Amino acid sequence: MKVVIVGGVAGGMSAATRLRRLDEDAEIVVLEKGPYVSFANCGLPYYLSGEIADRSDLIVQTADKLRQRFNLDVRPNHEVTQILPADHAVVVRHDGQESREHYDRLILSPGATPVVPPITGLDIAENVHVLRNIPDLDGLMAGLKADQPALVVGGGFIGLEVAEALTKRGVAVTVVEQAEHVLPALDTEMAVFVENELRQHGVRVVTGQAVAAFQDRGQTAVLTDGTKISTGLTLLAVGVRPDTHLAKGAGLKLGLRGGLVVDHHYQTSDPAIYAVGDAIVVNQVLDGTPTLIPLASPANRQGRQVADNLAGLDRPNRGSLGTAIVRTFDLTAAATGFSEQQAKEKGLAVSVVHVRGTSHAGYFPGGTPLLLKLIFNTDSGAIYGAQGVGKAGVDKRLDVLATAIKGGLTVADLPELELTYAPPFGSAKDPVNMLGYAAQNVMDGLSHSIQWSELPAALQAGKRVLDVRNTAELSEGVFPNSVTIPLNELRDRLDELDPKQAYVVSCFSGQRSYMAERILRQHGFDVVNLDGAFNLYRAVRPQDLVKF
Amino acid sequence: MKVVIVGGVAGGMSAATRLRRLDEDAEIVVLEKGPYVSFANCGLPYYLSGEIADRSDLIVQTADKLRQRFNLDVRPNHEVTQILPADHAVVVRHDGQESREHYDRLILSPGATPVVPPITGLDIAENVHVLRNIPDLDGLMAGLKADQPALVVGGGFIGLEVAEALTKRGVAVTVVEQAEHVLPALDTEMAVFVENELRQHGVRVVTGQAVAAFQDRGQTAVLTDGTKISTGLTLLAVGVRPDTHLAKGAGLKLGLRGGLVVDHHYQTSDPAIYAVGDAIVVNQVLDGTPTLIPLASPANRQGRQVADNLAGLDRPNRGSLGTAIVRTFDLTAAATGFSEQQAKEKGLAVSVVHVRGTSHAGYFPGGTPLLLKLIFNTDSGAIYGAQGVGKAGVDKRLDVLATAIKGGLTVADLPELELTYAPPFGSAKDPVNMLGYAAQNVMDGLSHSIQWSELPAALQAGKRVLDVRNTAELSEGVFPNSVTIPLNELRDRLDELDPKQAYVVSCFSGQRSYMAERILRQHGFDVVNLDGAFNLYRAVRPQDLVKF
Ligand SMILES: Cc1cc2nc3c(=O)[nH]c(=O)nc-3n(C[C@H](O)[C@H](O)[C@H](O)COP(=O)(O)OP(=O)(O)OC[C@H]3O[C@@H](n4cnc5c(N)ncnc54)[C@H](O)[C@@H]3O)c2cc1C
Ligand SMILES: Cc1cc2nc3c(=O)[nH]c(=O)nc-3n(C[C@H](O)[C@H](O)[C@H](O)COP(=O)(O)OP(=O)(O)OC[C@H]3O[C@@H](n4cnc5c(N)ncnc54)[C@H](O)[C@@H]3O)c2cc1C
Ligand SMILES: CC(C)(COP(=O)(O)OP(=O)(O)OC[C@H]1O[C@@H](n2cnc3c(N)ncnc32)[C@H](O)[C@@H]1OP(=O)(O)O)[C@@H](O)C(=O)NCCC(=O)NCCS
Ligand SMILES: CC(C)(COP(=O)(O)OP(=O)(O)OC[C@H]1O[C@@H](n2cnc3c(N)ncnc32)[C@H](O)[C@@H]1OP(=O)(O)O)[C@@H](O)C(=O)NCCC(=O)NCCS
Repeated sequence: MKVVIVGGVAGGMSAATRLRRLDEDAEIVVLEKGPYVSFANCGLPYYLSGEIADRSDLIVQTADKLRQRFNLDVRPNHEVTQILPADHAVVVRHDGQESREHYDRLILSPGATPVVPPITGLDIAENVHVLRNIPDLDGLMAGLKADQPALVVGGGFIGLEVAEALTKRGVAVTVVEQAEHVLPALDTEMAVFVENELRQHGVRVVTGQAVAAFQDRGQTAVLTDGTKISTGLTLLAVGVRPDTHLAKGAGLKLGLRGGLVVDHHYQTSDPAIYAVGDAIVVNQVLDGTPTLIPLASPANRQGRQVADNLAGLDRPNRGSLGTAIVRTFDLTAAATGFSEQQAKEKGLAVSVVHVRGTSHAGYFPGGTPLLLKLIFNTDSGAIYGAQGVGKAGVDKRLDVLATAIKGGLTVADLPELELTYAPPFGSAKDPVNMLGYAAQNVMDGLSHSIQWSELPAALQAGKRVLDVRNTAELSEGVFPNSVTIPLNELRDRLDELDPKQAYVVSCFSGQRSYMAERILRQHGFDVVNLDGAFNLYRAVRPQDLVKF
Repeated sequence: MKVVIVGGVAGGMSAATRLRRLDEDAEIVVLEKGPYVSFANCGLPYYLSGEIADRSDLIVQTADKLRQRFNLDVRPNHEVTQILPADHAVVVRHDGQESREHYDRLILSPGATPVVPPITGLDIAENVHVLRNIPDLDGLMAGLKADQPALVVGGGFIGLEVAEALTKRGVAVTVVEQAEHVLPALDTEMAVFVENELRQHGVRVVTGQAVAAFQDRGQTAVLTDGTKISTGLTLLAVGVRPDTHLAKGAGLKLGLRGGLVVDHHYQTSDPAIYAVGDAIVVNQVLDGTPTLIPLASPANRQGRQVADNLAGLDRPNRGSLGTAIVRTFDLTAAATGFSEQQAKEKGLAVSVVHVRGTSHAGYFPGGTPLLLKLIFNTDSGAIYGAQGVGKAGVDKRLDVLATAIKGGLTVADLPELELTYAPPFGSAKDPVNMLGYAAQNVMDGLSHSIQWSELPAALQAGKRVLDVRNTAELSEGVFPNSVTIPLNELRDRLDELDPKQAYVVSCFSGQRSYMAERILRQHGFDVVNLDGAFNLYRAVRPQDLVKF
């Protein structure tokens, strides 16, 4: 059997190596248009930042080593320009020459290409880059100019990694994001912590604006609202789309946003052609709907699975969830599954809770706060997604939650998780357990909460904030027209409250206000808890708060 | 309703606070024999080490604060000396006086007591301690003598935490463990990494020996083999047993090792009496068998659940898994579920795999190695347990695996987990995914492995080690009589191997040798992979290895 693979990185090379382990005799040819195979795409921003000091560390395997270890015929600088399905062959361009390569089975793992938006003046703009591979990185780094500001268009994961890297190199960076907030995979109130972190490190963040035009050969970017930003170097990082022009040319069936449609064995509409990685449409495990998840973990898994299927092991594609993480300076932000917004757009019955915890036991030194959000079905407790921000321990909690989702666990199962606990590592009730408790209380009707975004309307409708923080904490700011009674005094001061007034209780994190809510409800008050409370509200809408 | 709670720490106080949130009107009395409630038992060793600098940090809540916030009647220094089930009352001793306290419902969370083994001379030995609470800690610290060595009897979690703490205080420490290795929750070959870490930090570790006698009023400990160890301060940390003498006196049904038997609502054999925490027998979620799991996470959860049940919410005890972690100097060790030994003692069909990974992407600076072990059912792939050792990231992987077990995931699901991946946090194929791959290969018959403990017999039976490490690596030592061919040269040098010879392939971690195994098997060789390979074998049996 002769297997030809197009694309020699995450999906393609994983398929090649696994296939060799399964089949010593297969002829395996890997065609890669770029100069490198098996490179760490995900490491590119960290070479830019200087953290990965040695360029060769970006190259996980070389063609030579892959030949030696896996007896693979790996051909960098070989671009497939056409698929000829009827002939079971591809047309390959190398050194300006075209030739044909026959295949019994073809695996496509061409990845995705950075989207280049149709911006006026972009065609003649200079020093505007995308970042997908090592040549892109080399171009970007060659374009770096000391003392000149840089512009990153797009505040997604790659955009923010590059913004951080450039800042660390001493470049003044502006990030422009068209959406209402950076990191569209996260909801507003979680992403805002990342925006604040960026700003604290000197990055200018402009949201709700797109670049409408480039002027001065790219030295000036004009935003939708007319703002001009001067830039010596620009990165376009507004997302990627499946690189399926070859597949399209071959008449293979395409689907969502041009992604390749494959069956559960990764077979395309041509039975001799398989595809994996960023280029394919996958099913979201949460609801089975088609989606695109351009991430390394699924790409690597799919590469291995397609090899299994070719070798006769039945290894179906069970769908993808989508778990992503990004470090921005000292802050980590991560998300898995649906965001609240996505879940709502799908018409799901969604509740959310926010819980603030510490990376490890509060009484052990070095713990740092983290904020977790859980998105779940109000009736069944099915978990749709989770998000987290914090300095440490966010990766761990999101990994647990991603595992819980893949395992079909519900809100009721989260308190049952027995996670590693000793003081340097966690808490007897881990923040993930706590998410379960808080969500369970909402489901059981023990707590009625409103979200930060609902507060203005609630106040408008006549509700009043009861703030149960201690007096010393109030100097950080208070909600306008709020009543303040510290939680520990609440039972003794109930007569200061108006039984006909509807209250929204708040504290710092939402925990003490939940306790206040329980007291007040049992005393007959009309009361809801402000989920996430002051800490969350202040991050999103500091302008609404007043001095105490 | 008047609820009396015996024991005011993890289980007891969690029950009290939750009950108050559910029921403003209940009369809740917490009786605690010690001077403190709500203290961080788990933090005690870290105050000894000096890491927790402020003693008050050990006290999570005080009786006063609990009264203010939760309207709880919390009574430290109140010991319950008897339960009078027929009268719905307990006898309480305080300040030398006894009185009765009536209850409608009684919750017992008395915890466990350190086992004090019957050692000759212990009765007149001085400065011998146990560690369960703050007075114990105070006693231990008062007994500290500069320039005198200390002895820790028992190499479990608490023993090792104290050994580390004393070492950090400049005390020369010997740990004596009766079992074959420290940390009986782990299997030998994982625990040995911890022993090595202890020794590297100057701790003397004696295993397979018990303390048979104390001499010189405790200044000399005599081991089973006659060895004498001199000690100025001794900690007994040989395990705990359920503190159920009260329950026994009241005629409540006891079970496994004297633990309190409760139903799934935590009700004891007396319908008005409930119990939670270290004192009760729980069902192991893996197989439903009764077991004792004296850990903080289950105790806290059970405390909350019993309150729910009392308040009329149906919150059954769904069993416990048992997940534990310990930091020993720079090394973390953790375990969840059954060890290999436990699973085998239960007669389960067990396979294991060891995988070595890095805490985050290998190409990103700062990653450190970690070793994971998976224990699973050979036929179904059901996961029985997991263990890990390493400097960083062990907690995260064990949390994922504990979640996978609680979710009923199998080996086949581990590759499907989509864990947070960006270079500072993980790898595109996380070590947990890799465990799944390796285990799947064993189940699919793609890899046949033997364990470190099986190697001597295999060599005896005529097998020979083929070592596929690179020549430069061999200076670390080799297996006697082994053949060495670097993996990358294997295909070209197959003729150097004897087709009639059965081989055990090894490399450093087991990964390259697995690849060699695949090549050799397909070329008709009789071959098995040494799971964990040289790195694991060297840790357990360095004496078997020879110079290259
Ligand atoms: C800067 C950056 C940072 C990233 N960070 C993360 C991260 O932190 N976490 C994460 O999960 N994911 C990250 N990703 C995404 C991750 O790298 C991809 O999801 C993954 O590489 C997809 O694998 P693939 O095989 O589908 O495509 P790729 O790995 O991109 O490989 C496709 C290869 O196919 C080649 N090719 C395309 N067309 C042809 C042709 N016609 N002929 C020959 N060769 C062809 C391309 O040159 C390319 O090398 C990052 C990506 C980038 C660019
Ligand atoms: C040094 C140490 C380190 C530990 N480290 C960890 C760790 O890292 N991770 C982990 O998960 N677990 C750890 N544990 C175990 C954890 O603390 C226990 O599992 C947990 O506290 C059990 O909760 P409990 O409510 O059952 O018992 P406890 O928390 O022990 O509370 C029982 C209380 O009941 C009181 N009491 C008993 N009898 C009476 C009576 N007759 N009248 C009145 N009061 C009574 C006792 O004085 C005691 O204060 C550690 C324990 C110790 C001692
Ligand atoms: C590296 C690359 C070539 C794949 O190589 P690979 O040999 O398939 O993968 P790894 O080196 O991770 O090894 C995994 C194999 O070792 C096995 N293995 C690992 N540890 C083992 C152990 N201790 N014992 C036995 N087997 C082990 C695994 O089971 C797996 O084999 P399998 O697939 O046959 O089950 C490919 O992933 C690649 O090109 N990566 C770089 C690009 C990339 O991933 N980019 C995106 C992220 S930056
Ligand atoms: C601290 C202690 C008194 C328990 O107090 P508690 O109030 O029940 O627990 P916490 O302070 O953790 O708060 C948890 C509550 O806050 C709620 N909560 C937390 N964050 C929240 C948020 N952001 N929004 C809403 N509710 C929130 C939880 O849902 C939970 O309430 P519930 O049980 O009614 O669902 C008890 O655990 C104890 O004594 N601990 C010390 C001893 C110990 O645990 N030792 C062993 C380990 S060292």
